[in-house]
Amino acid sequence: MVEADRTHVFHSWSAQASLSPIAIAGGLGCTVWDADGREYLDLSSQLVNVNIGHQHPRVVAAIQEQASVLATVAPAHANATRAEAARLITELAPEGLNKVFFTNGGADANENAIRMARQFTGRDKVISHYRSYHGNTGSAIAATGDWRRVPNEYARGHVHVFGPYLYRSEFWAETPEQEAERALHHLERVIQAEGPSSIAAMLFETVPGTAGILTPPPGYLRGVREIADRYGIVLILDEVMAGFGRTGEWFAFDGYDVRPDLVTFAKGVNSGYVPVGGVIISDAIARHFDDTVFPGGLTYSGHPLAAASIVATIEAMRDEGIVGNAARIGADVLGPRLRELASRHELIGEVRGKGVFWAVELVADRVTKAPLAAAEMARLKNELLALGVLPFTAENRLHVVPPAVITDAEAERGIAAIDAALSAMS
Amino acid sequence: MVEADRTHVFHSWSAQASLSPIAIAGGLGCTVWDADGREYLDLSSQLVNVNIGHQHPRVVAAIQEQASVLATVAPAHANATRAEAARLITELAPEGLNKVFFTNGGADANENAIRMARQFTGRDKVISHYRSYHGNTGSAIAATGDWRRVPNEYARGHVHVFGPYLYRSEFWAETPEQEAERALHHLERVIQAEGPSSIAAMLFETVPGTAGILTPPPGYLRGVREIADRYGIVLILDEVMAGFGRTGEWFAFDGYDVRPDLVTFAKGVNSGYVPVGGVIISDAIARHFDDTVFPGGLTYSGHPLAAASIVATIEAMRDEGIVGNAARIGADVLGPRLRELASRHELIGEVRGKGVFWAVELVADRVTKAPLAAAEMARLKNELLALGVLPFTAENRLHVVPPAVITDAEAERGIAAIDAALSAMS
Repeated sequence: MVEADRTHVFHSWSAQASLSPIAIAGGLGCTVWDADGREYLDLSSQLVNVNIGHQHPRVVAAIQEQASVLATVAPAHANATRAEAARLITELAPEGLNKVFFTNGGADANENAIRMARQFTGRDKVISHYRSYHGNTGSAIAATGDWRRVPNEYARGHVHVFGPYLYRSEFWAETPEQEAERALHHLERVIQAEGPSSIAAMLFETVPGTAGILTPPPGYLRGVREIADRYGIVLILDEVMAGFGRTGEWFAFDGYDVRPDLVTFAKGVNSGYVPVGGVIISDAIARHFDDTVFPGGLTYSGHPLAAASIVATIEAMRDEGIVGNAARIGADVLGPRLRELASRHELIGEVRGKGVFWAVELVADRVTKAPLAAAEMARLKNELLALGVLPFTAENRLHVVPPAVITDAEAERGIAAIDAALSAMS
Repeated sequence: MVEADRTHVFHSWSAQASLSPIAIAGGLGCTVWDADGREYLDLSSQLVNVNIGHQHPRVVAAIQEQASVLATVAPAHANATRAEAARLITELAPEGLNKVFFTNGGADANENAIRMARQFTGRDKVISHYRSYHGNTGSAIAATGDWRRVPNEYARGHVHVFGPYLYRSEFWAETPEQEAERALHHLERVIQAEGPSSIAAMLFETVPGTAGILTPPPGYLRGVREIADRYGIVLILDEVMAGFGRTGEWFAFDGYDVRPDLVTFAKGVNSGYVPVGGVIISDAIARHFDDTVFPGGLTYSGHPLAAASIVATIEAMRDEGIVGNAARIGADVLGPRLRELASRHELIGEVRGKGVFWAVELVADRVTKAPLAAAEMARLKNELLALGVLPFTAENRLHVVPPAVITDAEAERGIAAIDAALSAMS
């Protein structure tokens, strides 16, 4: 079967000849297994999206039920399941964000949020962080800050700034307060230098995810909101990875003092059981398009199977206290235990995160903070796989990002595996 | 329920206050019904995507079965259902196209095909038709030729040419042969003027769809292939709307003398039962990425539910002769009967198409070919809805695009409704 994969399937972000994929055949909760029945504790949530865990029975049943009624419908028509999914999402959102535009994933959610901001303001430029990922399509990849942007820079109007990241401060800061203050100063100076009236939007991940789970220091997001208001700039918060329970809140921004104008989502909204994403829209921006044509759209916008899976996911997460579990496990188990590992393993430079959203930054030298080499990271990954743990690694970091349904025992088992793998490395 | 839709759902390509959507509640084959049980013959295939008809039992069962096994998996892993979907698609494709990169829909299929062409050639520019639609994301919308591009032109490197369209020739042509020849001359002159070594790709719909089902005249696509070879340009054929049975062939290009380097698909591949799209990749381009990182990817690439629905759709279409039915119904019923209508209704300027892919171009005046006014088109649409037919209209055209499973009796009923609606207009 892996043979058929290698012959016919072209994989994301890779040189194809170097791949040796694991053949995932099934899963349940925080466990997946391969075609030979070998089990793994999923500390990756696949691509940090399976927040509700694998094969949640209510979500599976909702997909099966909707498939039996109506699998697909054009976006121009109305559909009860889609309307209910939109209603539930806006119910979770702050007051004044009452409409949802559904897309196929996070990339086109960001594309359409950028489109709305440009149409609403009549301005062109979009500011985002260098340390960010916003998707692989034309404008989303140009908004992305990391290396993946560089070979794909075909869209105009994108400006990048450094965001706060105290461990590797770009601002010579020594405290979180200083980092926040200086990052805000840098952001405002770039806006002034670009010309505030040319800037349609700031597009920021509430907590930059793949870039390193860079939890923002106190005051940063409140300051971003103030800058947005000062210059009439639309604030788009990208909650594709951070939203729907990942941080221990429904939206990551619920943990900070900020209200966005547009929110983009995907992943956790239905744990990726059906491809979907979307934009939650403020009343002011929605009103702008009451009488003005919105120049964007897609065939599968508001797809019934996706909508059914969203309804079931939100209801199950609510009824089963899954967001609260993420918060608790982060505060009581993952945070303390990862910090304890850091006290014993020289390879750990920093631990940061919340909920089920943790980064362990690995360094060759704690003083210089030199990132652990790629070959060493590959070794760590293989050690963890051998210990029956499916890890998520990015550059010199291990991201500990299990499903939000993880139990204390599973979390402890994951931590023990990380402990053992790090011990094997030293 | 429509109330909940209007409060919380933001719709594609529209001013939101003007909408009065139909609430589609279910469907079967070529019929859909609304929440009040009112039935419609679906001559739209929703957005020209439900080729296999609504609620095909094998596809529904495959989705339900896969949902019970594994709903989601990260693209980096291998998965048996995904590999089988890729194998079946490449089996239908011409020799020498053996790999598939899965996306979420047609837009990001085109985004990734453009990315492959640029990386493969080291060149920037993409040529497409003014009369075209390629999707709503950053580069796909800039490649699009129609009005939807204009407010969204933020990507560089896109050049547009006029394609063949004899009824409204841009080349003062009088015969299909002349139209093809002159369109090719125009295309080659633009390439020479832009600088051939700056051009990565030509991205053309095999049969431009929303632009008017512009079936290419004999020789055009063969000539395009020759030009691609002459200048080392990658030929991407967009089969998102035209592929998987719509024209009465598996791929629309099977009806023409042309072999593409990249093929983009979505819609008909699984009739939109689960959001999915993709790129079929030639061996030469696939080989380029054996040792070079492909700088593109997405969370839901090769999604298991989508893959399961593709496998079931292709097998059902094959076993039930659905592609052949589309060819037959076009040749025996839709073509002859629409042409017969044209002989009686002054409002019809031209009828063109094949399979279940027909455009009826409506004019206020047959001599000047002045397009029928928007208000008249709205009236036609309402007449058809009142007659229990769900139509697809675009500008001054009625697109007769039913599911490929349509029976003779259903096709006759649709034609009779169009006849009656046109009679009521005159």
